[in-house]
Amino acid sequence: MRIQRGYTRHAEGSVLIEFGDTRVLCAASVDEKVPAFLKDRNRGWVTAEYGMLPRATGTRTEREAARGRQSGRTQEIQRLIGRSLRAVTDLERLGARTIQIDCDVIQADGGTRTASITGGFVALHDAVSRLLLAGAIAESPILDYVAAVSVGMHGGVPVLDLDYAEDAACDTDMNVVMTGSGAFVEIQGTAEGRPFTRGDMNALVDLAEHGIRELIGRQRAALGAV
Amino acid sequence: MRIQRGYTRHAEGSVLIEFGDTRVLCAASVDEKVPAFLKDRNRGWVTAEYGMLPRATGTRTEREAARGRQSGRTQEIQRLIGRSLRAVTDLERLGARTIQIDCDVIQADGGTRTASITGGFVALHDAVSRLLLAGAIAESPILDYVAAVSVGMHGGVPVLDLDYAEDAACDTDMNVVMTGSGAFVEIQGTAEGRPFTRGDMNALVDLAEHGIRELIGRQRAALGAV
Amino acid sequence: MRIQRGYTRHAEGSVLIEFGDTRVLCAASVDEKVPAFLKDRNRGWVTAEYGMLPRATGTRTEREAARGRQSGRTQEIQRLIGRSLRAVTDLERLGARTIQIDCDVIQADGGTRTASITGGFVALHDAVSRLLLAGAIAESPILDYVAAVSVGMHGGVPVLDLDYAEDAACDTDMNVVMTGSGAFVEIQGTAEGRPFTRGDMNALVDLAEHGIRELIGRQRAALGAV
Amino acid sequence: MRIQRGYTRHAEGSVLIEFGDTRVLCAASVDEKVPAFLKDRNRGWVTAEYGMLPRATGTRTEREAARGRQSGRTQEIQRLIGRSLRAVTDLERLGARTIQIDCDVIQADGGTRTASITGGFVALHDAVSRLLLAGAIAESPILDYVAAVSVGMHGGVPVLDLDYAEDAACDTDMNVVMTGSGAFVEIQGTAEGRPFTRGDMNALVDLAEHGIRELIGRQRAALGAV
Amino acid sequence: MRIQRGYTRHAEGSVLIEFGDTRVLCAASVDEKVPAFLKDRNRGWVTAEYGMLPRATGTRTEREAARGRQSGRTQEIQRLIGRSLRAVTDLERLGARTIQIDCDVIQADGGTRTASITGGFVALHDAVSRLLLAGAIAESPILDYVAAVSVGMHGGVPVLDLDYAEDAACDTDMNVVMTGSGAFVEIQGTAEGRPFTRGDMNALVDLAEHGIRELIGRQRAALGAV
Amino acid sequence: MRIQRGYTRHAEGSVLIEFGDTRVLCAASVDEKVPAFLKDRNRGWVTAEYGMLPRATGTRTEREAARGRQSGRTQEIQRLIGRSLRAVTDLERLGARTIQIDCDVIQADGGTRTASITGGFVALHDAVSRLLLAGAIAESPILDYVAAVSVGMHGGVPVLDLDYAEDAACDTDMNVVMTGSGAFVEIQGTAEGRPFTRGDMNALVDLAEHGIRELIGRQRAALGAV
Repeated sequence: MRIQRGYTRHAEGSVLIEFGDTRVLCAASVDEKVPAFLKDRNRGWVTAEYGMLPRATGTRTEREAARGRQSGRTQEIQRLIGRSLRAVTDLERLGARTIQIDCDVIQADGGTRTASITGGFVALHDAVSRLLLAGAIAESPILDYVAAVSVGMHGGVPVLDLDYAEDAACDTDMNVVMTGSGAFVEIQGTAEGRPFTRGDMNALVDLAEHGIRELIGRQRAALGAV
Repeated sequence: MRIQRGYTRHAEGSVLIEFGDTRVLCAASVDEKVPAFLKDRNRGWVTAEYGMLPRATGTRTEREAARGRQSGRTQEIQRLIGRSLRAVTDLERLGARTIQIDCDVIQADGGTRTASITGGFVALHDAVSRLLLAGAIAESPILDYVAAVSVGMHGGVPVLDLDYAEDAACDTDMNVVMTGSGAFVEIQGTAEGRPFTRGDMNALVDLAEHGIRELIGRQRAALGAV
Repeated sequence: MRIQRGYTRHAEGSVLIEFGDTRVLCAASVDEKVPAFLKDRNRGWVTAEYGMLPRATGTRTEREAARGRQSGRTQEIQRLIGRSLRAVTDLERLGARTIQIDCDVIQADGGTRTASITGGFVALHDAVSRLLLAGAIAESPILDYVAAVSVGMHGGVPVLDLDYAEDAACDTDMNVVMTGSGAFVEIQGTAEGRPFTRGDMNALVDLAEHGIRELIGRQRAALGAV
Repeated sequence: MRIQRGYTRHAEGSVLIEFGDTRVLCAASVDEKVPAFLKDRNRGWVTAEYGMLPRATGTRTEREAARGRQSGRTQEIQRLIGRSLRAVTDLERLGARTIQIDCDVIQADGGTRTASITGGFVALHDAVSRLLLAGAIAESPILDYVAAVSVGMHGGVPVLDLDYAEDAACDTDMNVVMTGSGAFVEIQGTAEGRPFTRGDMNALVDLAEHGIRELIGRQRAALGAV
Repeated sequence: MRIQRGYTRHAEGSVLIEFGDTRVLCAASVDEKVPAFLKDRNRGWVTAEYGMLPRATGTRTEREAARGRQSGRTQEIQRLIGRSLRAVTDLERLGARTIQIDCDVIQADGGTRTASITGGFVALHDAVSRLLLAGAIAESPILDYVAAVSVGMHGGVPVLDLDYAEDAACDTDMNVVMTGSGAFVEIQGTAEGRPFTRGDMNALVDLAEHGIRELIGRQRAALGAV
Repeated sequence: MRIQRGYTRHAEGSVLIEFGDTRVLCAASVDEKVPAFLKDRNRGWVTAEYGMLPRATGTRTEREAARGRQSGRTQEIQRLIGRSLRAVTDLERLGARTIQIDCDVIQADGGTRTASITGGFVALHDAVSRLLLAGAIAESPILDYVAAVSVGMHGGVPVLDLDYAEDAACDTDMNVVMTGSGAFVEIQGTAEGRPFTRGDMNALVDLAEHGIRELIGRQRAALGAV
């Protein structure tokens, strides 16, 4: 796992995150406006969009812009990223501005949504640091770290960070989003094949907790490096 | 909670399910075709679509057909309903045909996605019974019951089947989909406000298990009543 | 024929109308805004949208929201409903607000557009009564009753309220919209097979007048019952 | 009123029709295919599309191609043109081919839909003549002439072929489509302001019959002139 | 080549231009607004839209309004027309208004984009003359004439104004847009078959210069004729 | 300028090209099918799609997939890339398969379309080499090298490879696409401000020829390096 900050030069935060063969570019953009539903409420917004380059995958995926709409999967993922990042952001402290996180998958090999959350947090943090430095906000709206992993039951054994081949073969797939203080933001467990038991669930959550602690360590290291 | 079979006369399965003030009409349609990705594979498909009448809600919601696209929320829900019903269906036994479940919310007061899964199962069961009766399939492809509830932490207390007002105010919202034999098909927990602890998660899953067992009893009764 | 008011609880007017096997839910929503073309003109607007649940029909109809657009038939019908209701409404008395009528077909067996107009009028009336009660408007903007029937020539004989099987086999199909005082708002006669004569037209309009008078009696009864 | 055949050189039928200041170009295209719903049924289809150049009108109308969809009005009109032309065509004699009529309004001053039907018939006739000449069909599928007029009540007086200014001010607007033998294909009467009486209706239909007979004379003359 | 002004009566400029069998109707509309990106900048805008009637071509082309979007070719052409006309317009002198040029191809036989530019200029000029006459602007914003031709290498020989058959067979196709003073606004040369040499390019540009001078003479004559 | 082959692992050709601060990822995908218009014609196709990550630019650009359509600019660029690559490909030798080139801009600073062509050629070459190696084709369909540059007049001086700031300020912008043997595939010169003279044009083409020769040297080196 590798986190590379400042990957492109225009964005307020630009992070390339690599998890095995998965590579996602997370860009944070600050916009001094808020969506209509927050008008005159003196608070900000954090939101995300997700995309995949057509040939990030083993066989080419049709370009969503050419097809004229985002798939249900894309929308589900970008809603999850946005919710996860908002869970650790104090939107009042952020002030009446929006931070937009764009997560674009350059190469996919499983776990692109959890990589997006983990890398997206670092990009958000960089954008917030710029606002603090510029005096645009007085106190950081970021309340805690947040990261995510996918775990799964593969042949009866809980496995962390499945690659695509394992993912396709596993019985249960679980995405867990957790904060630096160990509380959960989101748990999504899905039986791909056989339904799972309460015991499976507990084993998967245990493994995910462990994995996320590791990831948050990497986020800390990456952010401390500047 | 009330389940009314044969609610409309055209569909192969037509179920009105009521949970408090929520009312969802679930219709099952049999189509003797399969989607392109299953061509020549000798197995069937179960899928779902979800919609809400514009004035099912307290204030009018724009009609998705008029807006020209389904929202991310709609797509997320209909994907969940489809996955949940497929988890208890043997698609090979079903044969090369599709059962389409349409879940349309007539009135909404929280829990529309879990009501859709619970009622959708009964509609699917009715459509399958017709196929068995007509001799189109030899053995039922339905492997188990499946039902769903939403639970939430409301003021620190786990609560079952929140209505809309409680839902909006709760800290954590969890949708649980479980089979008749007590295994899980899907668990989706989301922190709406404060992140939740492992203890909260366990308390919510306990409550959900209890609620789903109750619902499956109602499904059995409704199906036995004919 | 049956008219049931207060069918759902959120809408300002909510009416289920049944004509034979046809069932349409008509919901009236009051919005304290007007469309752009009426800006600063001190008058209101009444408009309608029409939809059909996918399995309201004998074989499943594709969901318009999924297909991404409303059909020409849907647009034609909703324009007709809106025009018919505006014909008996004094838009200046209504004030700068919009009443939106949503007509959703739960089950279809011919005559859904005329059922929508007849039921939509009752829903509109209920919404207006609320505005009067709340003191939002001083005098009712509803100038007259309005109802509609479809009539057709079936094997040379004029028939009222055709069901779907008759409708498909008939030579001429006519929709008539008439007010309580017996004047016409809309007459649409279409030769489905052989063109029709002036005599056919007169016989159909006679029958329609008779049928609409009956319907307006039912509207009066339904509105008087509260 | 003027009908000019052979207005452009590519189409199998190309007619410019002028009614006062209204000018519509009607082009018939023969396609040796049928729509999916007619597959293997050994019969043909006649259908129409309608459009308006953006500056056909007094103030510019947004281009439907740029807006990304046809309005409800456009769809209503093109469905009416198609139905009217099919009413005088024997689709079995036409054989398994489609004749597509494109009606494009170059300049608009009221009555564009009735001009489209009247001119569209002549274009259809020209396309059919080519098919007969080429021996592609043995017997003409055209069973009768068909033409259309719009009439209206203007200040209490029935008026034929209203121009735009009169149209906007009239109380009732009626489109009548009639065959050469004097039978009706379509009657659409709409109260724009005050509802209309049975007497108004009769006066309008009388006037329309008279007008259409005149138009059919012009169609005959135009077709005979070659 | 023929330029006919005042072809329709509503537009501020309405020009039918014919080049061989190609006929394009160019309409200029004045709108007293500017696009959002020019807000409060005290300058105007000239823009263009392009369309083709479905049966302008030898075989029918699908209607872009029905298909729901403009093709890449259409967008490319309308961007070129707009840029060409803006190149000879002083947008500050025009004031905060937009002139929209609609170029609609009635009949196509090659060279529709260059005919659109050449005829569009005359329509623009007519619209500007009206603004000058009405005193809305003090000084003409039109700085120079502009016209365009297409040239091509056909069997090794440079040819002006190819018709469709030649166009399809030629090796290189070049569109040149030039002003009255002989400077270039746009040169677009494309190898359809074999790549072209610098010598080919020079021969084509020579021929184009000659052709455009001729066209600008015709524009002058057409504008002087009123 | 830097060309990096094998940038991602799934595509048959994957090239990152950098021109100053511009970075474009060009991926070639082989698909053993051809578009409908080439059916049964025993020849292949080369086509391209172009996209820009939302934050490739100084301020965020709206995501085309979210907006639901590709802009005119995007379509113009991807058509140019496709034409340029087809100009050096023998489509019969390629056989009945499609090579799709996806050009995605990671970071933009001017010249993204010319970088896409230059890098896209290398990706195409890599995909073709794989087909040759696998014995799918017997002889290379690539007939020549092809590369592109943008040049412009900046303050009266011809300049090669303008960055974004220069580009915005320049009078004339020209994109030139040339083969290894020095013939032209495409020349597009546009006056952004003042029209340009024949002399300007010649100076720009001279400079472009020089620049492209340099680029083709780099392509040769990059391809020889494996």
